[in-house]
Amino acid sequence: MKTIGANYTGAGRCVFTVWAPEKKSMTLRLLDPAERDIPMERTAWGYFSVEVTDIQPGTRYFYKPDGAEAYPDPASHFQPEGVHGPSAVVDHAAHPWQDQSWRGLSFHDLILYELHVGTFTPEGTFEAIIPRLDDLAATGINALELMPVAQFPGVRNWGYDGVYPYSVQDSYGGPEGLKKLVDACHTRGIAVFLDVVYNHIGPEGNYFSLFGPYFTQKYCTPWGNALNFDEEWSDGVRDYFSNNPLHWFEHYHIDGLRFDAIHAVFDMGAVTIWELIHTKVKNLERRVGRSLHLVAESDLNDPKVIKAPEAGGFGFDAQWLDDFHHALYVLLDKEGRKRYGDFGRMEQLAKALTDGFVMSGEYATFRKRKFGASSAGIPGDRFVVFNINHDQVGNRVSGERLCHLIDFERQKIAAALLLLSPYVPMLFMGEEYADESPFFYFVDHSEEQLIQAVKEGRKQEFAAFGADSEPRDPFEEETYTESRIQWEKRTEGKHRIILEWHRKLIELRQTQTVLRNVDKNDIRVTVLGQEGLVMHRQSVGGYDHLLSLFNFSDEEVSYELPSWIEGWNKLLDSKQQHWMQEGDNSATLLP
Amino acid sequence: MKTIGANYTGAGRCVFTVWAPEKKSMTLRLLDPAERDIPMERTAWGYFSVEVTDIQPGTRYFYKPDGAEAYPDPASHFQPEGVHGPSAVVDHAAHPWQDQSWRGLSFHDLILYELHVGTFTPEGTFEAIIPRLDDLAATGINALELMPVAQFPGVRNWGYDGVYPYSVQDSYGGPEGLKKLVDACHTRGIAVFLDVVYNHIGPEGNYFSLFGPYFTQKYCTPWGNALNFDEEWSDGVRDYFSNNPLHWFEHYHIDGLRFDAIHAVFDMGAVTIWELIHTKVKNLERRVGRSLHLVAESDLNDPKVIKAPEAGGFGFDAQWLDDFHHALYVLLDKEGRKRYGDFGRMEQLAKALTDGFVMSGEYATFRKRKFGASSAGIPGDRFVVFNINHDQVGNRVSGERLCHLIDFERQKIAAALLLLSPYVPMLFMGEEYADESPFFYFVDHSEEQLIQAVKEGRKQEFAAFGADSEPRDPFEEETYTESRIQWEKRTEGKHRIILEWHRKLIELRQTQTVLRNVDKNDIRVTVLGQEGLVMHRQSVGGYDHLLSLFNFSDEEVSYELPSWIEGWNKLLDSKQQHWMQEGDNSATLLP
Repeated sequence: MKTIGANYTGAGRCVFTVWAPEKKSMTLRLLDPAERDIPMERTAWGYFSVEVTDIQPGTRYFYKPDGAEAYPDPASHFQPEGVHGPSAVVDHAAHPWQDQSWRGLSFHDLILYELHVGTFTPEGTFEAIIPRLDDLAATGINALELMPVAQFPGVRNWGYDGVYPYSVQDSYGGPEGLKKLVDACHTRGIAVFLDVVYNHIGPEGNYFSLFGPYFTQKYCTPWGNALNFDEEWSDGVRDYFSNNPLHWFEHYHIDGLRFDAIHAVFDMGAVTIWELIHTKVKNLERRVGRSLHLVAESDLNDPKVIKAPEAGGFGFDAQWLDDFHHALYVLLDKEGRKRYGDFGRMEQLAKALTDGFVMSGEYATFRKRKFGASSAGIPGDRFVVFNINHDQVGNRVSGERLCHLIDFERQKIAAALLLLSPYVPMLFMGEEYADESPFFYFVDHSEEQLIQAVKEGRKQEFAAFGADSEPRDPFEEETYTESRIQWEKRTEGKHRIILEWHRKLIELRQTQTVLRNVDKNDIRVTVLGQEGLVMHRQSVGGYDHLLSLFNFSDEEVSYELPSWIEGWNKLLDSKQQHWMQEGDNSATLLP
Repeated sequence: MKTIGANYTGAGRCVFTVWAPEKKSMTLRLLDPAERDIPMERTAWGYFSVEVTDIQPGTRYFYKPDGAEAYPDPASHFQPEGVHGPSAVVDHAAHPWQDQSWRGLSFHDLILYELHVGTFTPEGTFEAIIPRLDDLAATGINALELMPVAQFPGVRNWGYDGVYPYSVQDSYGGPEGLKKLVDACHTRGIAVFLDVVYNHIGPEGNYFSLFGPYFTQKYCTPWGNALNFDEEWSDGVRDYFSNNPLHWFEHYHIDGLRFDAIHAVFDMGAVTIWELIHTKVKNLERRVGRSLHLVAESDLNDPKVIKAPEAGGFGFDAQWLDDFHHALYVLLDKEGRKRYGDFGRMEQLAKALTDGFVMSGEYATFRKRKFGASSAGIPGDRFVVFNINHDQVGNRVSGERLCHLIDFERQKIAAALLLLSPYVPMLFMGEEYADESPFFYFVDHSEEQLIQAVKEGRKQEFAAFGADSEPRDPFEEETYTESRIQWEKRTEGKHRIILEWHRKLIELRQTQTVLRNVDKNDIRVTVLGQEGLVMHRQSVGGYDHLLSLFNFSDEEVSYELPSWIEGWNKLLDSKQQHWMQEGDNSATLLP
């Protein structure tokens, strides 16, 4: 297998390789310094390749399959003029990396922070994030998770319309900008995760089919034809996507990938694309000597996702645990039952804490079928939990965050449950100080038909959900600018208290041996009616114990501390004046 | 879950149950003794049910969903007037079973015999098979595998157009005919396997969608929309198909099921339909105390198919091993390379014998992709092998059997490799005496459009395969009658020799301890150039050794017996006068 894309090897030499198994010829069209066409050689396995010896980094180019029109490289590393423009040669050796001593972090230790580059700062660039890193680190956050950065149409997009999975969005600062951010993170002890999309290719600027059979009609996704991972000619597609993680790990020193919607990836082959990725990444991990993490977004509630291939699994290290969100949110906000009608019982939150999947075979009215299988016994660090993420906020008609929906005291409960849980927590940018900016859905397509289709689709989606107002126009620039967080608020009033609350909880999480034990045999939950619950965790071997008491109600709830353990000691109390605007709720005790 | 269909419980009582989750009402229309309509009650989980107390077995009935037209029961046990006619009540307690002492056979011990009921005898019925059972048993055959018997349109069909998976074809003799055959088999020590189709429902007489969402548009099969095993409302479909095996095992005393084309069954759910079936059948097995076998036809080359659900597998006991056929056939018939261009090397046959899947990740030109994963180490009794089956014969343009394609000596090699292999062998009706009838593809639809579509489809398929003649008209009755085997030939000339050759090989297989050991650690194969191979098998513990020498060429090939074992003893020699028409080929030796 050749490495696809334009691979600059130094001293003016660059190897161009593209996969087009059914094409008879391929021409490389260089645009710099002057336009010239270079025929490519057909090599094995459906690839065309050519080495050019007088190339400067930054050189723009197109490919012409079968002498047809010129199109950008499907494996482009950079699209300096957007999705329709030429691709550009990147010299990955040029960046002066400062992170030589970086060895990554254990997944177990992570405090993830999901971040949309475009709306995290007024500049909306990678570099603009850097000045905020020290503040994030001071709160205890040690892993950024960037929403997708692959080139998308225009300058405003969540990232899921990306069309060049090997490229870095030009308006964010391109390849060099991302490298500077990663380097700055690593020198501060912060890992960087990237959200990647292998379930579809965005609709605008998608020239893939002009090169090869990337898509199949055997399966349907909500976003059109599925990628071809198991039919004729699928080897090239499998190479393309199974090498993509290596690209991020090697060229950008990325620490982990979050794979978008793996339930929309179909592969009946004997070696699934996930197993192939697992194998390649674990081989790389052995070679580079640092931890490379693979995290799935999965709407399957199937423990197979996080089992090893030897055990019949997909081989992900961890997966998002939506059920934790649903179970907790609906107890905090009764209105939430309209969205999550299958949730609302305290026992479900208890199950989320002890077992993981709440839906482990039960009938889900939302799905009109039985759903899921049990994840009992799987250690806590195989799941990522969150109270809000881009989807939970952005897919509400008014883009409300949790702090818009529940009161101050319940916000503290939510944070405490998240950070004292046996799972790896993820915050959404601004959540740590209860930022009150909305997060809307926004796009910046250049094709009118597509813009209308997106608008109409959103309207219908919300209508189906019974929303009582119309969604914001995704194409309007204000929809985007209003989604920017207000970083300056973090030092003010209630925002400061919430920030400090997060800092304190993270500190407890990272320092208490009990909280560092993710073995599910060492966590028991007692439900206190529908009013609250008590989480009892113990250290490995049962030497230390920690109780977390959560009262979801507005009334006092009494609970007698277990008498078989003596000398309980209070570590944190959300009713203390220090944490108060008003009211009372949670207490954490240690013997 | 209610038991679907018409369940006669004795003394005139019958419970009618049908699944129609989106219908508001359901009416039972009884046709006997006089027409009357009975409203059904909507129960839990989308079922409608009613008990009637004055029913006679044989009573014909329809259902009327939402007061619409009357349709047959999707879970009909009997369609006495064909696929469009009314369903009929069956009293399963009525058959006087004689097989009380039958405990089934170990899968390991089976000699399977695939049989098409319509063309095995001139009568084409279950009962007409019975007089031939003693002859089959005398040859050593101990398991019939019936091609699908679920009601199909008309009287001539392979069975894969069946539309009532709980019913038994009327023209074959219906439910009572099948029970008589099974009973007759069991009293002779013969097991009965049934071919069942869970990947699609035949096109004619398919009223399923008028009852419920049995189909999904998320996946496509070569035969239209896939069955809905993982989308909204799939629970009823999963109940329907996961209870179907129990129906055959309980009401018909069937010993095993062969599941057609499981690669065309799509299920992304956390508990696949195969795991659900595995669980239900293993529970039944514990209860009834006899072996119930689940065998898959799989075009996935994925060991997952025969792994236990605990190991991430589908839970089948065994699967068909097509690669054994391809590897062997192409060595016997050089013409075969036109059909199986990825096969033709002696090393592949060696791999088929030692590992199982020959395609274990290699690029398959036929598929234009890499295919399969390794099955090395999986015991031999998890695979079924064959030299011909209904597909291998029937999907040739002239319906040729192996004996039409290769000479007498090579026929003996084929049989010897099959029966001395570590796998469970399956013969196709007539193969044991080299029956020379063709086996064509035939249908008997009543809808002209469908007939034309089938004809056209077959033509195109063969044209794509590069066949040099047009296929027979599937609708012509002669296409069917010429496919009947000629049983009387078995005592004549070369047919008698081939029959005796099979009997002798089966006897060796069942009596030699070496051949009864299916552990793959105890089988080694030495390739003799491209001319032949030597299979060396040993008993558990390595006490006894058996060499099988196969010479595929027309020349003499020399091989020196391993000297570290002394006292080799010849058990069988295909060159002996007894087995000869002419020529020489195989020898089997034991120390």
